[in-house]
Amino acid sequence: MSKVIKGGTIVTAERSFRGDVLIEGERIAEIGTDLAGDEVIDASEAYVIPGGIDPHTHLEMPFMGTTAAETFESGTFAAAAGGTTMLVDFCLPGEDGSLLNAIDEWDRKSKDQICTDISYHMAITGWSESIFEEMEAVVKDRGINTFKHFMAYKGALMVEDDEMFASFRRCAELGALPLVHAENGDVVAALQEKYMAEGITGPEGHAFSRPPEVEGEAANRAIMIADAAGTPLYIVHVSCEQAHEAIRRARQKGMRVYGEPLIQHLTLDETEYFDKDWQYAARRVMSPPFRSKDHQDGLWAGLAAGSLQVVATDHAAFSDEQKRMGVDDFTRIPNGTGGLEERMGMLWTRGVETGRLTPEEFVAVTSSNIARILNIAGRKGHVAVGAEADLVVWDPSITKTVEVATQKSIIDYNVFEGMEMKAQPRFTLSRGEVIWSWGQNSQPKPGRGKFVRRPAYASASKALSKWKALNTPRKIERDPMNIPAGV
Amino acid sequence: MSKVIKGGTIVTAERSFRGDVLIEGERIAEIGTDLAGDEVIDASEAYVIPGGIDPHTHLEMPFMGTTAAETFESGTFAAAAGGTTMLVDFCLPGEDGSLLNAIDEWDRKSKDQICTDISYHMAITGWSESIFEEMEAVVKDRGINTFKHFMAYKGALMVEDDEMFASFRRCAELGALPLVHAENGDVVAALQEKYMAEGITGPEGHAFSRPPEVEGEAANRAIMIADAAGTPLYIVHVSCEQAHEAIRRARQKGMRVYGEPLIQHLTLDETEYFDKDWQYAARRVMSPPFRSKDHQDGLWAGLAAGSLQVVATDHAAFSDEQKRMGVDDFTRIPNGTGGLEERMGMLWTRGVETGRLTPEEFVAVTSSNIARILNIAGRKGHVAVGAEADLVVWDPSITKTVEVATQKSIIDYNVFEGMEMKAQPRFTLSRGEVIWSWGQNSQPKPGRGKFVRRPAYASASKALSKWKALNTPRKIERDPMNIPAGV
Amino acid sequence: MSKVIKGGTIVTAERSFRGDVLIEGERIAEIGTDLAGDEVIDASEAYVIPGGIDPHTHLEMPFMGTTAAETFESGTFAAAAGGTTMLVDFCLPGEDGSLLNAIDEWDRKSKDQICTDISYHMAITGWSESIFEEMEAVVKDRGINTFKHFMAYKGALMVEDDEMFASFRRCAELGALPLVHAENGDVVAALQEKYMAEGITGPEGHAFSRPPEVEGEAANRAIMIADAAGTPLYIVHVSCEQAHEAIRRARQKGMRVYGEPLIQHLTLDETEYFDKDWQYAARRVMSPPFRSKDHQDGLWAGLAAGSLQVVATDHAAFSDEQKRMGVDDFTRIPNGTGGLEERMGMLWTRGVETGRLTPEEFVAVTSSNIARILNIAGRKGHVAVGAEADLVVWDPSITKTVEVATQKSIIDYNVFEGMEMKAQPRFTLSRGEVIWSWGQNSQPKPGRGKFVRRPAYASASKALSKWKALNTPRKIERDPMNIPAGV
Amino acid sequence: MSKVIKGGTIVTAERSFRGDVLIEGERIAEIGTDLAGDEVIDASEAYVIPGGIDPHTHLEMPFMGTTAAETFESGTFAAAAGGTTMLVDFCLPGEDGSLLNAIDEWDRKSKDQICTDISYHMAITGWSESIFEEMEAVVKDRGINTFKHFMAYKGALMVEDDEMFASFRRCAELGALPLVHAENGDVVAALQEKYMAEGITGPEGHAFSRPPEVEGEAANRAIMIADAAGTPLYIVHVSCEQAHEAIRRARQKGMRVYGEPLIQHLTLDETEYFDKDWQYAARRVMSPPFRSKDHQDGLWAGLAAGSLQVVATDHAAFSDEQKRMGVDDFTRIPNGTGGLEERMGMLWTRGVETGRLTPEEFVAVTSSNIARILNIAGRKGHVAVGAEADLVVWDPSITKTVEVATQKSIIDYNVFEGMEMKAQPRFTLSRGEVIWSWGQNSQPKPGRGKFVRRPAYASASKALSKWKALNTPRKIERDPMNIPAGV
Repeated sequence: MSKVIKGGTIVTAERSFRGDVLIEGERIAEIGTDLAGDEVIDASEAYVIPGGIDPHTHLEMPFMGTTAAETFESGTFAAAAGGTTMLVDFCLPGEDGSLLNAIDEWDRKSKDQICTDISYHMAITGWSESIFEEMEAVVKDRGINTFKHFMAYKGALMVEDDEMFASFRRCAELGALPLVHAENGDVVAALQEKYMAEGITGPEGHAFSRPPEVEGEAANRAIMIADAAGTPLYIVHVSCEQAHEAIRRARQKGMRVYGEPLIQHLTLDETEYFDKDWQYAARRVMSPPFRSKDHQDGLWAGLAAGSLQVVATDHAAFSDEQKRMGVDDFTRIPNGTGGLEERMGMLWTRGVETGRLTPEEFVAVTSSNIARILNIAGRKGHVAVGAEADLVVWDPSITKTVEVATQKSIIDYNVFEGMEMKAQPRFTLSRGEVIWSWGQNSQPKPGRGKFVRRPAYASASKALSKWKALNTPRKIERDPMNIPAGV
Repeated sequence: MSKVIKGGTIVTAERSFRGDVLIEGERIAEIGTDLAGDEVIDASEAYVIPGGIDPHTHLEMPFMGTTAAETFESGTFAAAAGGTTMLVDFCLPGEDGSLLNAIDEWDRKSKDQICTDISYHMAITGWSESIFEEMEAVVKDRGINTFKHFMAYKGALMVEDDEMFASFRRCAELGALPLVHAENGDVVAALQEKYMAEGITGPEGHAFSRPPEVEGEAANRAIMIADAAGTPLYIVHVSCEQAHEAIRRARQKGMRVYGEPLIQHLTLDETEYFDKDWQYAARRVMSPPFRSKDHQDGLWAGLAAGSLQVVATDHAAFSDEQKRMGVDDFTRIPNGTGGLEERMGMLWTRGVETGRLTPEEFVAVTSSNIARILNIAGRKGHVAVGAEADLVVWDPSITKTVEVATQKSIIDYNVFEGMEMKAQPRFTLSRGEVIWSWGQNSQPKPGRGKFVRRPAYASASKALSKWKALNTPRKIERDPMNIPAGV
Repeated sequence: MSKVIKGGTIVTAERSFRGDVLIEGERIAEIGTDLAGDEVIDASEAYVIPGGIDPHTHLEMPFMGTTAAETFESGTFAAAAGGTTMLVDFCLPGEDGSLLNAIDEWDRKSKDQICTDISYHMAITGWSESIFEEMEAVVKDRGINTFKHFMAYKGALMVEDDEMFASFRRCAELGALPLVHAENGDVVAALQEKYMAEGITGPEGHAFSRPPEVEGEAANRAIMIADAAGTPLYIVHVSCEQAHEAIRRARQKGMRVYGEPLIQHLTLDETEYFDKDWQYAARRVMSPPFRSKDHQDGLWAGLAAGSLQVVATDHAAFSDEQKRMGVDDFTRIPNGTGGLEERMGMLWTRGVETGRLTPEEFVAVTSSNIARILNIAGRKGHVAVGAEADLVVWDPSITKTVEVATQKSIIDYNVFEGMEMKAQPRFTLSRGEVIWSWGQNSQPKPGRGKFVRRPAYASASKALSKWKALNTPRKIERDPMNIPAGV
Repeated sequence: MSKVIKGGTIVTAERSFRGDVLIEGERIAEIGTDLAGDEVIDASEAYVIPGGIDPHTHLEMPFMGTTAAETFESGTFAAAAGGTTMLVDFCLPGEDGSLLNAIDEWDRKSKDQICTDISYHMAITGWSESIFEEMEAVVKDRGINTFKHFMAYKGALMVEDDEMFASFRRCAELGALPLVHAENGDVVAALQEKYMAEGITGPEGHAFSRPPEVEGEAANRAIMIADAAGTPLYIVHVSCEQAHEAIRRARQKGMRVYGEPLIQHLTLDETEYFDKDWQYAARRVMSPPFRSKDHQDGLWAGLAAGSLQVVATDHAAFSDEQKRMGVDDFTRIPNGTGGLEERMGMLWTRGVETGRLTPEEFVAVTSSNIARILNIAGRKGHVAVGAEADLVVWDPSITKTVEVATQKSIIDYNVFEGMEMKAQPRFTLSRGEVIWSWGQNSQPKPGRGKFVRRPAYASASKALSKWKALNTPRKIERDPMNIPAGV
């Protein structure tokens, strides 16, 4: 049974135009005018955009002695309600250190719950022969072409420079893309200790111990290591000018570096941590922390200029009770906030409605760019014939104020609470199925989502390999006469 | 009668994928697999890309006391043979200063000659009430949404800052995009006089009198003026790090500035002007001049990073005899070189074959980006259903060495002579018609090309207008009690 | 009769050390420990520093239809009371355009009034054969080695790029240093007209019509022109990051560019113009206007980093009544504020007391650096044997709140009113004479000051000349066989 | 017995002037005209400058399984012959790890040998409670206010980020200045392994394995750590734009960071490593390696602009035989080259003679700046009454070609061999004693040199402490009501 989305303005990363979209099965069959289908989805007075892709979530993640409360079910429901039809979750190795076992575990957790499609990034949290070996299977057998590296969380997830270099070289060989969480873990740990010793135990200590310089340094270091290893690089949750500057500097030298700001850092600032209400402040604890307002302008400009490419959420939601684990010690407050449901709406409101971004750029940074980076551009993130029908009828006449009572997330608060969003999905379609319509109460069917396999060797990766191969240092050929005997 | 381009790899700015393209009439009717049509165009082992758009040509342009020798006929033939299916020529007011009359004159010259589609940029070479008025008709009645401003050629085409500001404001009102030739004309004139006085009369004097700093300064100034006027800006022929730096700096502040390097500056350097053979050197005289090699890396990186968006030619071809007008005085050598036929091939060879650019980026900078900037993205510069079938079957197995004997340009030399290009069009299609196939001797039918009307208010222009409106300075309301009497 | 300044800590741009200073006649005779003299000046618990040099004042200047109210007498008294022992005033040509006549006029006004030493910068406000000729006499006969150029004040003082280039080249020949007021006069004029047309007639319009971009652009342009002309450059009243960035960029390329922030821009911000009290806001009107706070950090860092070298005042004081000339039209408010008495105290308070600057850097930016730039380093701006005894016993235990009632300036307000200064001169000496001691009521004897002649060819100017000579473009020698006949 | 240096042009960092210098005992007693003394030293047609200070030498240093061949005797003789009157050698802990024992060992080695004054930097090559404790004695009892940290030489001297942060904080407490060798040791080690594995075993592998990015990264990281720890930072042997850029970026934010290029990197480039003669190339092996020519312009500009402050040598001279330890493995070639005798002459020739530097800047970067940074400005590095009479009569009429046969260094080669120096010391005085005169054959008396104690808390260090104290993060005071119970 075919569907047609009628009467809307289709917006892609390239352009906007009036048109209908015909869907047959799970895919877009035709784009044109005056199309007909068995079922009509009304897009009049609205935009038709690709479903959002959030490449940065931590659902049910064991972390800091607890487990992120958002489930795959509630998380993907929140996503759908917000216009996001795919997310990429971070898969962390367990105690056995095995990458493949971790994927099995993530599959086990997600498969009966997910309402939208998902994929995984694999985390590299140490280095060994077996990890080196498993990486190949992760890429080739499991369809995961991205590996995450934590430069922070010393004593836990953090990897050292030599490990990172080794892993990045392996990524280069496999045509996979390394990701980094860029903060200098050594300095963060030392500053945490320092501020705790000085009696600064509240959430403000979290902000003080992770200043922008610490993030900028790590971003700069990761870029150098990626360049030496011959691989593109993707830097998650770019929150500040220091990291953004390092990215720009690399890009203007021709390095292939991508930066991902979060909707939180684009819209919220560090004064949140200075709130007199501990719980209010603790709810906002995430890494990197929110920054002072002057950093935000830079992030917004980067999205328009193309020096930053993707807006994500780092959705890792802990309950109030979980947050209270750190009531006497900010270093024990579980790091994480939410945003899966608000990412698209907040970005439109603060970006497009203000003229900072064009509608096309909004589409680019919420879906098309990350689809290309993840090497699934033909399948997701585009309104094009043959692509999967992950589509949103985006209605700029629906205004919604964020409120905990009605949110889909199961957490007991929302960092955007009380803020108004000036557009919302009228309909969200996942592979041709309407999984959300405005005003709907029920959630999409858990388990209907699928895992998206992503092939290796994205275009930028191939081009960079070619460039590196042509520019490899070469041995100087010396006449043996000109080489003395050794000592 | 339908046509199908079969068996190729379609490359867009977004992605590459195997697919056939069905053409009905002048437009793309379908993209898919196993498509059938009345006529089959073989794209096996080749790419299918949008036809190139060269947004910077000067055909039959009266300039420096003579007229550019390349005709609309030979120029568009050269374009087609090189894979370019549309060009935008600069329309200059004549002695009466009228913009509309100039368009009529350009139409008269071009209409029976053009083998491909064209459009015009309108030049603003002075300022007056009537120009202010005519601009509206140019945009609304003639379909021209771009206005060019020369900051050099003092005493001839050059405009002053106040004129530029006035014109830019008018562009902002009309939703048109200003373009600038960025060189400080005052300083160029003074340096020309200085070097001539010192006896440096040869082509090297041309390079010395137009150093990169002079271009960087003007780019920086134009950007400031555009920002003050509230309009996006497009800087033509960006040749050096100084101008590129100014563009990057602006973009990282959120300004909407575009930069266009030429294929010449990407591949040729200033030592050409120091050649012992006067005629050789004089053939290379253009403004800005070729630069030292260290500038080239920056330009290439800018194309990958997105800080530069378009590769053009500034095709303005003068014969050897014309060049000899300046045999005793470099300031009288007509400025201009060619490249319409070589732009795509040289860029592929030096860019994609080396790994500097991905194939998708190649498409972006040769057609898709400029189509979006010119606000014709739905019609040109994209392989998409509904778009005009300006397409090239781009064959990476055809190698061609540039030689004057076989070139389509009517000029007696070629600045790329002897260089090898590692890909060429197997077929070039213009609105569905094959106008060039590899090995063909005859040219496309003159006059078959059409003028492309371009609507105002491109997306970036609209977003910027919104942003400026929201951020307008506001009057401070003062109690009359707090305002003293005047003097 | 000799004097000895005993018991202080001598601070130079190089270092701080305990020591006495013996003065014989007008000069420093000895620096050492346990020195004796006929008269003892107590410096215990205080610093002994070079007398301040303010290189930017406009006393009794005819401007905008009126004349700056501060006289040479009151101005130099205010200077002395604030620890400044020399100032450099801007000499403007009158209606006849003659530079030499203007100097005569300035001599006439100043000679019986000045309490401290002075010198002049000569303004170039147009260009002609006779100005070209007179410049030589100004340098060689009148001892003035600096020429000021206004890039703003269109229709009045402003010069065009070609005039500036010609004058800069003349400076290079004469070993003189060009100065610029960097604001794009064309754009300022256009913005003034725009805001007036929009009904923004109050002092806030002054700020809006002279945004930082307009200053940054002009700074960048002046730097390019100076570089092309082969001369160092000094940019007065650098108020914003945009201009500072241009200076840094030039310096990191080896260009010899100096930047002078004002004490006002270091400490006051643009919100002053939004004050509800018109007179309050109008008193702050100067060009460039005060900026938003984020610009200040950059200026302070520049003083420590050495990218900015001098702190001045641009003292140009107009009375409340004069300010009211622009009550209906901000463009008619005479531009100027004061600061001669507060420069040293405010800079110490906001700079040294906060740790932004070392005491040595305070000395460098208030006297030593400008003495070197003005090529009088052996005579002024240094605590060294043989130098003129322009010295200040600088007492960090004297706290003073700025108040109009007690200020030496004859103006009826003070932009620093109510602010506390945490150090003040205990004694100010000019050529060995105590002309101010803390608590003193009377002023120094008018007419005791002298005009300071400054020789041409400062060290940086000589080095740059050598560099330019070695790096001059050279004619390519071509065999006549390789030069065709002309057309 | 007094001495007078007569008839010269005295050059300081501030200015140049004609004058005589009277020396009594070890110190400068008077500066003036027509001075008389018991002995006259002729400075006619010459400059009188402060003796050079080379803050970076490794004499008789155990390293890479051997010991640097240059002795304290030959090294200080070479220094004196080249116009350098003080050097600062790096003191490395031995196997017991004790700092104080290391100083004793260095004293033992140096005390009977040194012909000029010396001082030490203390190296921190690990971290422990006892090092923390000993640092205080090093500063307070031994007069050493600088601590060096190696970010490279993994498995040997290298320290990790947490160790560096701890040591930097200790420096901040003690008023000492941390120094860093900035190269990412992890990545260097990995690249060494990579290139060796690829069969690149010659000296070119040394250059390839230590690219500029690796240095720039480490410089950037050290700066961040110093900023977090609240201390100024000094980066030794800055060789490339990447590191210089990081320094500039820090300084323009107000951070107190110093950079020291070497005379080698200013004048020699990486093509030396590609020489067909292995021994020739191996002689040039040092870390960081020489760079491509484009880096040199930046370093020179930095010296003029003040973003780099000091020119040193990193003199660590290994014999040809020692170099041959690495004939099959570049990683085993002892790292080091010489320059003590040539630093001043080469810098004058390539810097002052070309117009890149003024004579005053030459003095600043060869002695005055480092004296200030080392906090001995009153004693060394200045021509001032009361300062020690470390002086050079610097003769711009003496031309000398570097040749191994006549050099004072005991090494069998010279990286500057065959290059011409256009000025040389006519006389070198150390504390009033003439220890070298042009043409002299004998060396100064070994053991006459003294160890220079340097006090802690230099001026920049004090200012930064004040700034940090004022800007310390503060605890948010929360009502207990607003802090929930923990979990």
